[in-house]
Amino acid sequence: MAKWKSRVSPAVVRRLPRYCRFLRDIRGMGINRVSSGMLSEFSGYTASQIRQDFNTFGGFGQQGYGYNVDDLLTGIGQILGIDKKYSLVIVGAGNLGRALARHAWTPSGHIEVTAVFDSFPLTIGQNIGNITVKNVNDLPDYLKDNKVDIGVITTDWDVAQNIADILIDGGVKGIWNFTPIDIETPDSVVVKSVHLSDSLHELIYYINHNDD
Amino acid sequence: MAKWKSRVSPAVVRRLPRYCRFLRDIRGMGINRVSSGMLSEFSGYTASQIRQDFNTFGGFGQQGYGYNVDDLLTGIGQILGIDKKYSLVIVGAGNLGRALARHAWTPSGHIEVTAVFDSFPLTIGQNIGNITVKNVNDLPDYLKDNKVDIGVITTDWDVAQNIADILIDGGVKGIWNFTPIDIETPDSVVVKSVHLSDSLHELIYYINHNDD
Repeated sequence: MAKWKSRVSPAVVRRLPRYCRFLRDIRGMGINRVSSGMLSEFSGYTASQIRQDFNTFGGFGQQGYGYNVDDLLTGIGQILGIDKKYSLVIVGAGNLGRALARHAWTPSGHIEVTAVFDSFPLTIGQNIGNITVKNVNDLPDYLKDNKVDIGVITTDWDVAQNIADILIDGGVKGIWNFTPIDIETPDSVVVKSVHLSDSLHELIYYINHNDD
Repeated sequence: MAKWKSRVSPAVVRRLPRYCRFLRDIRGMGINRVSSGMLSEFSGYTASQIRQDFNTFGGFGQQGYGYNVDDLLTGIGQILGIDKKYSLVIVGAGNLGRALARHAWTPSGHIEVTAVFDSFPLTIGQNIGNITVKNVNDLPDYLKDNKVDIGVITTDWDVAQNIADILIDGGVKGIWNFTPIDIETPDSVVVKSVHLSDSLHELIYYINHNDD
C-alpha cells in the first residue's frame, strides 16, 4: 500500500467519515463544487485544517478552484474503503443488536448484516426484519462456511472476549465492540469500540462547562 | 468557573471518560496508586500525553510518586461533572431507545432515565423495565412539570430537529443525538451526536490499512 497511509493520524481518520457525511448533504443540495471555506461552515473544522487533511492524501483538487464534490466523495470513500462490500454478523440480539441489524447503513448496499446470533432460547429463531436469529453455538460453523468481514459484539460484557476469540478464529478482519470491556485481538484483527458511557460523559462535561 | 476550563481541547475532553474507565478497572484490581507509565499501558496513550492531560487540570499528584487512584477518579469525575445526578428522557422507543433505557450507566445511580416517549400508538403504554412509554404529544407538559437535564433523540431523522426544539423549549441543557442529522441548538444547549456509521467507517479504514 502507499506510503502515506501509515502516517495518517487517528484524528484525521476520525474526520474522514464526517467529511463524507457533509459532502453527501452538500451533494443533496445540488452543489457540485465546494471550497474548503464552505466545508468549514458545514463541518465546524477550520478551512486550513480541511486543506491540511486533504493534502495528507495528495490533494483532491486545485486550490482556488475548489473541490469537485463527487470526486472528493469518491476519493475519500476509496481511502476509507467504503467503496467495497462488507459482511457483518451481530452477536447479541438484544435491543442494541436489533437496532444495528435494522440500521440503514450509508453508503447503502455496501454493508450487509448477514446473520445475528444469540444464546437465549426464546430469542433464537425470532426474526429481525428478514434475518432469523441463530444459536450462538453455531457461530464457529457459520464462520467456516461464510466469509465474514466484521463481527459486531452486543452481548453482555462477561462473554465478549470469548465471542471475540470465536470471531477471530473464524477469520473476521475487524471487531466492532459495543460492550464496556477492551477486546484483545492479534495484530491481524482491528477493533473499534463504541463506549456509550464515554460519549454521555463528554456531553455532561460540556453541559457543566458551557458558560466557561 | 475556573479559567483553565475554557482552554481544554476536545481531544483532552474525549480522553477524560476513558481515563475514568481505566482507573475503575485498575481500582477493581485492588491497585491504589498508579504511575503515568502504568496508565499508558492500560490506555494506549503515551505517558507524557497522560501527564500533559493531567497538568491541564493542575496535576493531581506529585510526579515520581505516582497518582492515588481514588483521588484521580474523584478529580476527573468532578471535572467531567459525573459526580452529580442527571435526569434523561429518551424520545424514540425503538430498539436503540430501549437499549439506552436499559443501559447500566457508570457511575451507577448518577444517571437516571426518567421517561421514554414515542409517537407510535402500539408502542405508547408498553413497559421498558419499569418505565411506561408515554405519548410524545405529552413531552412539552412533561418538561414543564419535571426537571430534565438531557434529552436523548433516537427517533427517525426527519423529526429529530422538531423533537430537539421541544426539548430546548422545555429547558434541557444537553441533547444526545443518535440520528444522522446535525441538530441545531442555541448556545445554551450543547449537543453530542453519536454517528454509528462514522464509527463503522473508521473500523473499515483500519481493516483496509492494517498492513500499512
